[in-house]
This record gives sequence, C-alpha cells and structure tokens, in this order.
Amino acid sequence: MSNTACYALSDWGTTRFRLWLVDGKGHVLAEKRSDDGLDTSRNRGFTQTLEGHLSALGAPADLPVIICGMAGSRQGWVEAKYVPVPADLKAILSGAVKIEGIARDVRIIPGLSQSGTSPNVMRGEETQLLGAILDRNLSNGIIAMPGTHSKWVTLKEGRAKSFSTYLTGELYALLASQSILRHSIGDAATAASPDHLQFKAAVDLMLSGERMLGGLFGIRAAMLLDNLSPEGAASRLSGLLIGAEIAGAKAKSGSRNNVILVASGAMAALYSKALHIADLDFDLVDADEAVRKGLFVAASSIWPAKG
Amino acid sequence: MSNTACYALSDWGTTRFRLWLVDGKGHVLAEKRSDDGLDTSRNRGFTQTLEGHLSALGAPADLPVIICGMAGSRQGWVEAKYVPVPADLKAILSGAVKIEGIARDVRIIPGLSQSGTSPNVMRGEETQLLGAILDRNLSNGIIAMPGTHSKWVTLKEGRAKSFSTYLTGELYALLASQSILRHSIGDAATAASPDHLQFKAAVDLMLSGERMLGGLFGIRAAMLLDNLSPEGAASRLSGLLIGAEIAGAKAKSGSRNNVILVASGAMAALYSKALHIADLDFDLVDADEAVRKGLFVAASSIWPAKG
Repeated sequence: MSNTACYALSDWGTTRFRLWLVDGKGHVLAEKRSDDGLDTSRNRGFTQTLEGHLSALGAPADLPVIICGMAGSRQGWVEAKYVPVPADLKAILSGAVKIEGIARDVRIIPGLSQSGTSPNVMRGEETQLLGAILDRNLSNGIIAMPGTHSKWVTLKEGRAKSFSTYLTGELYALLASQSILRHSIGDAATAASPDHLQFKAAVDLMLSGERMLGGLFGIRAAMLLDNLSPEGAASRLSGLLIGAEIAGAKAKSGSRNNVILVASGAMAALYSKALHIADLDFDLVDADEAVRKGLFVAASSIWPAKG
Repeated sequence: MSNTACYALSDWGTTRFRLWLVDGKGHVLAEKRSDDGLDTSRNRGFTQTLEGHLSALGAPADLPVIICGMAGSRQGWVEAKYVPVPADLKAILSGAVKIEGIARDVRIIPGLSQSGTSPNVMRGEETQLLGAILDRNLSNGIIAMPGTHSKWVTLKEGRAKSFSTYLTGELYALLASQSILRHSIGDAATAASPDHLQFKAAVDLMLSGERMLGGLFGIRAAMLLDNLSPEGAASRLSGLLIGAEIAGAKAKSGSRNNVILVASGAMAALYSKALHIADLDFDLVDADEAVRKGLFVAASSIWPAKG
C-alpha cells in the first residue's frame, strides 16, 4: 500500500494523534489514530512516536511528513511561530518549520494569532480552515469550527481577518462531570439521543440575550422541582453552551449568511440544529476531510515534485 | 458563658458547619466553625455531629437550635420543603421543621423555590435574605448574595417576588483549577492582591454585552502573546464571571438603584468594585451578620418565651 504514498499527513494535538498516508491526489492509503498526544509523546520522544506510527503503516524512510496542531506549540516538538491576522492563508504554508537533526523531512504548520484588545490564538484549526475554504472556493464568510475550543473565523477577500474562541466543549465536560450539575446529568453527558425540546428551549433562551451563567443552575432546579431527566439535563446544558456560543458569534459577525460549519458526527448534528434555531444559513464541511485537505495542500505546496 | 445562652443558631451547608450561641438579644456568646458539611455529618450521624459541637461550646441540654442551609435538603438531615415564591418571608419561619425522635428541640428552616419557565431553588440564602431585609427595614429592591451559587432576589412590597442563581463561584474554582486556564493562573487563583486594571477591563467587556464563553480563552491567549501575569489572569477571570453575573442581573431587574449587597471580606470588596463599574448604587450588609440575624429572628419567633 505504501509504495504509492506521496506524503504523510498528521494532526497532532494535546490529547490525540492522527496520521494518514496519501497518494499524489490526496487519497487516503492508510490511517492511524492514537492517544499519543503531546504529554505522552514528550516523554517517549517525538521522533520515536512519529517513526513508530509511520513504521506501523509501512511508510518508507524518505516519505515527507506535514504536521499541524499543538506539536508546533512552545510545549510541543518544535515551535512554529504564529502568523498574525489579518493573514493570507498561504502564509501558513510558507511558515511551516522544518525539524532539524533528523533524517526524515518533517515540517510543522504554524498557527494563527490575533493581538490587540481581543488576543487570541489557534493551532490546528488554521489547517482545517484552509481545507474548508479551498473545498468551497470561499473568499468571504464566517467559518465555524466547533470543538473543545470552538473557533469562529471571519474571512474577507480570501484573508483570515479576525477570529474568536469559545470554551464550549471544555466547559461542557467540566460542568457535566465536576460541577453541581453532575448530580443531574450523571452518565447522560454523552447520551446518544438528545432531548430536542430541552436543547431548543436552551438555545432560544441564549439567543434571547439571557446569560449562560444565569441559566446553568436552572438545570439543577428543574431536576429537583420538575423531575428533569438526565438526558434532558445534558441536552439543556449543551443547548445553553452552544446557544451562548452562537449568540456571541452572531452578535459579533452581524452576518446572517455564508456560515461554513466545519464539523463531523454528533457535533455536526448538534450545531446544525442550533444554527437552524438561530435562523443562520450554513453549509456543512466534514471536519476530518477539511484538515486532511489543508494538510495535503500544504504538502503539495512544500514538496510539489512529489505530486 | 453558656449560662446566659437563649438559642443556638446554625448555618449547616454542603461543605461547612457554623454554630453560634446567642443571648436573648442575639449577641454572640460563643462560636464554632468546622468542615462538618453534609457528607461528613451524614456518615457520623447528624445528631452526633450537632451534639458534639454544642457540647464543645458548653451548651445546656435544653437549649433550642435553629438551623438553615442544606441540612434541610432531601439529602440532608430532615427535608424542610421549599416555600414557593412569591413569598412573605414570614412563611419560612412558620415552615420550620422540627426534628422528631431526639430530646433537644431542633428545627430546620425551609428554602425558597420558583417554578415555571425559570425554575430555581435556594437553601440558606433565604435566612440571609430575611436578616438583610430586617437589618435595612427594606420592602422593595434587589438583594445580591454572591458566592458559590450567587443569588439575586427581587423584593416587592415586603415579599420575595422572584430570584436568579449564577454559578459564579463554582465556575471560578473549576476554571481556575481544572480548565486550560489553570496554566495561566496557577496558584494565583486565591491571590490576595487583585489586578484592578484587568478586573475592570473584564467587567466592562461583559457589561458591553460580550459573552463570557467567548472571553475566557482570551486569558490564555493574553498569557501566550502579552505575558499576562498569573495575578492578572486570575483577576481577569474573576472580572469576566462577576461582570457576566452583574450584566445578567442588571438586564433582568432593569433597576439602577436599591441593590443590597450581602457579602463579607474579599467577596464584598470584589463585588463592590464591580457594582461601582456597573454604575449601580448599593448598600453593603455583612453576610455573616445577616445570616445570624435571620436565624435569631426565626428562633425568637418560634420560641418567644426564651427572649
């Protein structure tokens, strides 16, 4: 399989590692996913970790590797300094940093930073962003990338103009498992079947201008007074957080159109529903495909002869 | 000392226990504070826990005890069912539940509940509320009781009309110690000297209508890009949360006046500053004194002959 591989692409984050071998057209030939995030990899050695996974996929010794994500942070393998916005996304391609002192050609894509009164940073999402924009041939619009730290980017004339980060996913996990709400939610935090009514009511409440901080305890009270179910409580929490995120982003962008939602699976379903409730038109781009496309474009740009 | 004691007053919460012996005028004769919250006390036995502390203060066997707080919850000693709002606060006095099957006369004050589209509950704060209202001879206004779960009550013609809960204190502790922000804040979460500029900027941001969920990650980014100090990060987090709470309460009450802030120590200082920034006039009532006053009024009403 690996005899036709042109590049190895990797999304290397804080808690997870993903690797794909692709051919000259970006088609996936082999794939590996593991929990070898930054902390694990730092202890074992980044080179050893990467070579182990490449070897498991049968990658040749001279296959070049392009990486995005927290591996390029100060606490990562090698720091790939942020590219400041407003930024042409081609700048993240030319800013890729080569790892010195190893035989293989390995490069890490830099993140984006925003200075001024709303300081912000991203690492990994810039590559997803690049893939999504190229996929839709987009020059203007809003790109939403939900997750642990959801990113909303404003694209203007082909340049990333500004962006915001919402702590939605991280706060959901903390509140569901460690706050007083854990008594109401329990094991339903990752329930497969959301309670649509509770979710919608919570999103609507946030869109009406209410504060999420004031809505959270209502979940506990509704369990005590109205026997709200664990699934209902989980959906209400999810609706409050996603609703607050979308209300914030909507107020900031002022835009009613041209939202590109970059998400997969259950996340894509939840955010699609919330965007509908918020009366925002959107297109859905698969998050996995977007990051692979961004990585592949970066690789093709750095090593064009391989294509 | 205890030979002049008329009542024992106790604020018995989830994580802490406080006990005062007072004379017929409510003056404190002896005091005890401990970590014997609900979980600890349930295992050892509520009667044993209370009698142990009473005995340590030299309280006579026939001294009546009035209790407020989570000891009256379903998971507590004996459930004192909520009094629904709108409520005359005298209703919480007549609703006190007597503990059966023990020699001593011990009663637990009920909490308040709010049904409908904004379900809510409180336990313990209703007694603080009663004390604050009597202290200021108040019939109309807004009473703010900050803490782990901050309560804001609207008082109308002497009745508790409605209330809101903000998860401010709990979220501060979770975010400072367990989220990505812990890397920025570290041991400064309980810093004695807040960074006033960061606190004010964060409160102003929330009052301008920004979403707290979108402001949190800025703390991380400011540390990475602008070398924000741990104390600055802690103050910014505190300002975002308290600012969101006050912005939410201000939007809800529409009132610019007559806020009674029931707080002590560092909490009183922080909220005073935030209320100033929000241009809200307020009077400060000491939280400890308010709960003791509420408990004493309840005791005098239940056992008038003792006064």
